[in-house]
Amino acid sequence: MTTFFDAPNGTPEEAPLERPRVITSLGGGHGLFQTLRAAQICSPTTINAVVTVADDGGSSGRIRRELGQIPPGDLRMALAALIADAEEGGLWENLLQHRFGGHGALAGHALGNLVIVALTDILGTSQHALDQIAQLAGAKGRIIPVCAEPLDLEAEVSGLDSDARVMRQVRGQVAVAATPGQVRRVRIIPDNPEPNPAAIEAILDADLVTLGPGSWFSSVIPHILVPGIVDALAQTKATKTVVLNLTSEPGETAGFSAERHIHVLRQHARNLQVDQVIVDAKTLSSQTERNHVERAARTLGAEVSFHDVQAEDGRGRFTSIHDPAKLCAALLASFAGARKR
Amino acid sequence: MTTFFDAPNGTPEEAPLERPRVITSLGGGHGLFQTLRAAQICSPTTINAVVTVADDGGSSGRIRRELGQIPPGDLRMALAALIADAEEGGLWENLLQHRFGGHGALAGHALGNLVIVALTDILGTSQHALDQIAQLAGAKGRIIPVCAEPLDLEAEVSGLDSDARVMRQVRGQVAVAATPGQVRRVRIIPDNPEPNPAAIEAILDADLVTLGPGSWFSSVIPHILVPGIVDALAQTKATKTVVLNLTSEPGETAGFSAERHIHVLRQHARNLQVDQVIVDAKTLSSQTERNHVERAARTLGAEVSFHDVQAEDGRGRFTSIHDPAKLCAALLASFAGARKR
Repeated sequence: MTTFFDAPNGTPEEAPLERPRVITSLGGGHGLFQTLRAAQICSPTTINAVVTVADDGGSSGRIRRELGQIPPGDLRMALAALIADAEEGGLWENLLQHRFGGHGALAGHALGNLVIVALTDILGTSQHALDQIAQLAGAKGRIIPVCAEPLDLEAEVSGLDSDARVMRQVRGQVAVAATPGQVRRVRIIPDNPEPNPAAIEAILDADLVTLGPGSWFSSVIPHILVPGIVDALAQTKATKTVVLNLTSEPGETAGFSAERHIHVLRQHARNLQVDQVIVDAKTLSSQTERNHVERAARTLGAEVSFHDVQAEDGRGRFTSIHDPAKLCAALLASFAGARKR
Repeated sequence: MTTFFDAPNGTPEEAPLERPRVITSLGGGHGLFQTLRAAQICSPTTINAVVTVADDGGSSGRIRRELGQIPPGDLRMALAALIADAEEGGLWENLLQHRFGGHGALAGHALGNLVIVALTDILGTSQHALDQIAQLAGAKGRIIPVCAEPLDLEAEVSGLDSDARVMRQVRGQVAVAATPGQVRRVRIIPDNPEPNPAAIEAILDADLVTLGPGSWFSSVIPHILVPGIVDALAQTKATKTVVLNLTSEPGETAGFSAERHIHVLRQHARNLQVDQVIVDAKTLSSQTERNHVERAARTLGAEVSFHDVQAEDGRGRFTSIHDPAKLCAALLASFAGARKR
């Protein structure tokens, strides 16, 4: 998606885009939430959130088992990120994010999850449901489940046995995220799911596609295990930017270095090509570490750009989440950089 | 609530209102739903639905027990009646009335019930919650729970024992509605609840107050057991119209004649004064029956007007529900009649 104009000799030429007009962000959970907040600050004309559907815990897991629908929790969080600035956004955000209290059957369910599944029943598809809620709530973008069917995660995990070489299968997103072992590889079940056509379209139409941050094995990698998504990433003219996590996560990526995050991407999608990797400058301050991550990024065809992207808490202490305004600046800078290459 | 104009001698006189500008309807369930549909056809400037809070069955009962809130089901139905004609009304009506399927903890819950309780948690009172949903959905009126606290029903029922003179206590709206015995009297627990100030205001501000149709002991009579409501009915200048049911209901009013419906009103609220009673002309066609119901109505100070108010199904057969357009015509005619008295 680039602008064309008539060059003096009459043939159309591409003018480099200063800012992305269409941003498509792939992920799930809190990582995607922060990215979508950042995307809004970038002021594109269109934002698409392509959201993982592999969650099996909490309210989402109960809904998935009880009603057979895709888990709505990550969809709801993405929606909340895109409505916070809408006119009635505060109310809608509170409403969708509200969790029932008490000690009964409703306890812990998020109302937004129930609204999504009810509208899916009424309108026939989760995509229709999400488009309708987005319109009602005045969302600043589109929420797109990566697949229309729920996915299961299965991980090969080492370190669960006295013999460290033994690999064990761990099944389900919650189990994978919380394993005390080391996750070596994940797969999705079914292993060749039909992607949501809207997800493919959102990737092909984008000027900027982001992947991450987020729970690496359960929110980020599942996207690149859907074959149609990898193909779309290969075809799109968008700048493709991976945003690395600020820290390794207890459980699934405990002890992972920055470059290992990149290596496992490549390990799960051999053909994945990326333009930019955004790394927090302060988290990775030593030149040796930077060299490592740059070498890893080159295996994906990507440059690394170092930016201050870490959020501070009220007392000026750094947190483990991305600051939306800082992340927006980093995305815009790395987008402009990639366009000039 | 009447119009004043300067009479030739300079003193203000009352001009009879042709149509009610403020209609306040008391009831619950399907009966209130039809009345609110009728009220909308009457085109007043304001519609208030004062809704019973004594339900203890189904989704409402589970929510009431689990979260300690007033049962939302009758509130949701009234809301649905008032949004059907709104711009996004069809969608909102479908959304609020949607019931979850499956066989799990959510099965049978109406989404609208969950939205009402979630917003009550967020905004602090059910009145705020209902006003907010009404605004979001573009409702053509206000939904007002008669009390802010849930009420319990307890009935004295005969015919449950081999000795027909023995009275037994039956507790709870579902149990009362389904009793195989004869309901003699109901009471509410607590017996002197604080009415919702908005309900009092809605009665005092009305030009026309309607009571019924609906489940007589569980949706209609509970209103006149709240002392503040009876006081407001005594004070208001509104025309007070009772709309009788078309048939007796299996369970709570099995075998009840039209005049017995009126007698039990008086039996439960000795001071209740009413202006008009609307009776379906076809249901009560014999002059003897009409004389009976007129005599009963006079004990409330009311006139009876006979109108065709029964809905027909697609094949032209009469049903046991009121037709909104016919009921509107009956309400307007009896309103004009009462104003001329």
